[in-house]
Amino acid sequence: IQSKLPGVSTTIFSVMSKLATEYNAINLSQGFPDYACDPKLIELVNKAMKDGFNQYAPMPGSNLLKENIAEKVEKLYQVKYNPDTEITVTAGGTQAIFTALATIINHGDEVIIFEPAYDSYAPTIKLLGGIVKTYELAPPDYGIDWEMVKKLFTANTRMIILNSPQNPTGSILSTDDMQALIKLINGTDILILSDEVYEHLIYDGQKHESVMLYPELRERSFIVASFGKLLHATGWKLGYCLAPEKLTAEFRKVHQFNVFSVNSAMQQAIATYIKEPDNYTGIGNFFQQKRDYFRTLLADSRFKLLPCNGSYFQCASYSKISDESDKNFSIRLLKEFGVATIPVSAFYQKGTDHKIIRFCFAKENSTLALAAEKLRNV
Amino acid sequence: IQSKLPGVSTTIFSVMSKLATEYNAINLSQGFPDYACDPKLIELVNKAMKDGFNQYAPMPGSNLLKENIAEKVEKLYQVKYNPDTEITVTAGGTQAIFTALATIINHGDEVIIFEPAYDSYAPTIKLLGGIVKTYELAPPDYGIDWEMVKKLFTANTRMIILNSPQNPTGSILSTDDMQALIKLINGTDILILSDEVYEHLIYDGQKHESVMLYPELRERSFIVASFGKLLHATGWKLGYCLAPEKLTAEFRKVHQFNVFSVNSAMQQAIATYIKEPDNYTGIGNFFQQKRDYFRTLLADSRFKLLPCNGSYFQCASYSKISDESDKNFSIRLLKEFGVATIPVSAFYQKGTDHKIIRFCFAKENSTLALAAEKLRNV
Ligand SMILES: CSCCC(=O)C(=O)O
Ligand SMILES: CSCCC(=O)C(=O)O
Repeated sequence: IQSKLPGVSTTIFSVMSKLATEYNAINLSQGFPDYACDPKLIELVNKAMKDGFNQYAPMPGSNLLKENIAEKVEKLYQVKYNPDTEITVTAGGTQAIFTALATIINHGDEVIIFEPAYDSYAPTIKLLGGIVKTYELAPPDYGIDWEMVKKLFTANTRMIILNSPQNPTGSILSTDDMQALIKLINGTDILILSDEVYEHLIYDGQKHESVMLYPELRERSFIVASFGKLLHATGWKLGYCLAPEKLTAEFRKVHQFNVFSVNSAMQQAIATYIKEPDNYTGIGNFFQQKRDYFRTLLADSRFKLLPCNGSYFQCASYSKISDESDKNFSIRLLKEFGVATIPVSAFYQKGTDHKIIRFCFAKENSTLALAAEKLRNV
Repeated sequence: IQSKLPGVSTTIFSVMSKLATEYNAINLSQGFPDYACDPKLIELVNKAMKDGFNQYAPMPGSNLLKENIAEKVEKLYQVKYNPDTEITVTAGGTQAIFTALATIINHGDEVIIFEPAYDSYAPTIKLLGGIVKTYELAPPDYGIDWEMVKKLFTANTRMIILNSPQNPTGSILSTDDMQALIKLINGTDILILSDEVYEHLIYDGQKHESVMLYPELRERSFIVASFGKLLHATGWKLGYCLAPEKLTAEFRKVHQFNVFSVNSAMQQAIATYIKEPDNYTGIGNFFQQKRDYFRTLLADSRFKLLPCNGSYFQCASYSKISDESDKNFSIRLLKEFGVATIPVSAFYQKGTDHKIIRFCFAKENSTLALAAEKLRNV
């Protein structure tokens, strides 16, 4: 059959995780924790199933969960979202991204993305008949020159995708970035898809610049959030999308025909769990300590660590070690040294290779120590 | 914003279920059981979570689950599907349908559907840039004249969607239908999406005519199945898609960017559960008894019951009671008589109204008895 995504093969995450298993390597590639989530959370799911939450949840999400999301968002950001009309529960962040794009993109519409980028953005845009306009960011800071972004605007620009804290680079957007963006889109009807799945994983006392904090952005933004990341349970596949009423109404039209609704019992459990801020407020610190621990372990290695301001991920240059392509290098690292990572070129459509690989540090300290021991031998 | 689905509002299922709650009506509208699923199944999910199945499952599905699906399919139909390359686990049947369509439809492609139809087909096709070609079926038999179907073929016909047992009519395809279809598509490269979510719910000793039983159809078909229906747990949102390797490869390219993967713990639990055929082989009988019970209860009512050969659903004509539109009638039934149903015109894009409503009988016998009592007063 005629492929809709001719250039696309299996995501690098699946490829590396599979290889990691085959070669019995330590898996710092795909972004997920290797430790247990809170047993209280499991108990809550068990209870919800026993209480009968096994049939279709309401299409936009459980009422209780939507209310508790609204409460949590207001506590954290002092911004109100109406649970009835502005919050939709999704089968993970990825599904929210796909659905928002499917809601917006008409044939020929252009969407601006910043690369390196989470690898679903570009193929999803193309699949839906859109055109990807790419702004390539460069190490070590992966900063944005907004004047250059402006040059990508055309009459067909429909949307900009933001992602802060960013996967894979761990960079974050600053207040200056947000102000520049506001100026740029003022007077246009360009929409924003803001992938904020790492909103809580931000370090060194820095503040998460959610688009919701800026009324000029909030009014035109789909914001994507992830419970997988918040609750150390990426396999539960639960997230949500915040958007003003008009956008949410269109989003739900697509959502109802894509997945219809999302796991009932887990929604119920999470609703109860996030009601208690103590269950998640420590998560930024928790991951900052992991980042610091991992950086310390690698300090005397031959990898050059890039800045990491947020997310699960630490990027590192290996250019002092080898001039192989990052794909070859990461495969060799996996097979010869027993550590699976992600080559950052996989996050560029053109495969731009800055000789940088990505480590996921959302792992037990013992895992990080073991990996570092191997990496120090490289 | 410019709506991608201008004609679409909230699905009729959500509308009726919400009204049912508001008016405290007996809900025979949306298709889901009102009784508990097997406690063994809940215990298996609990165990899987405790065993650590809380992180991303493999993108195409848990290996164990895919193997056990292959085994179950072979037992039931004596047809082999390769778990590695021909089976993909999805977040429910609806997501499998959406993903198969997104895999196939290029801008301007035509897809043939039979109406009344599950209400996701037409809008999903349109959303993806396709064109819906509709063949309208009529009561009481909702049979297909394949010569008429042939008249819908053009150079742009890409796919035909089948659904047997059919939602909402409970009609099923016969061997003759399958033979006619094979003749019709012979020599074309038209693909098939076969929505078989009610495969086990088939009555009176009849045989389910899965497309997989016909090599000429199997080789060009995506088959969609649902664990929600099989396990009385529609809220778990788990299903799968069977398709030959070439189609599956393309399906997974889309799947990986739509939801990426599906709930780990529930996949693990279901894998164990379906390994034991005793856990599901009685389901056809179970629902046949419910159908018979419900039909007996309504035998002396003023509703005229249509044939029901499969599925969760019993359709009935109310033309002896009223000449209202089926939408008005079902709303009145809900508000005045306390029984929520679905007007079958909601399953026709043109709203074709044959004065028929749909009852879901996947309910406790006590619920059915209570509903029938009210319905006999109409
Ligand atoms: C959905 S699999 C990828 C997980 C992730 O976000 C990453 O590793 O970048
Ligand atoms: C996905 S909600 C609809 C459930 C169902 O299949 C139906 O009621 O027809």
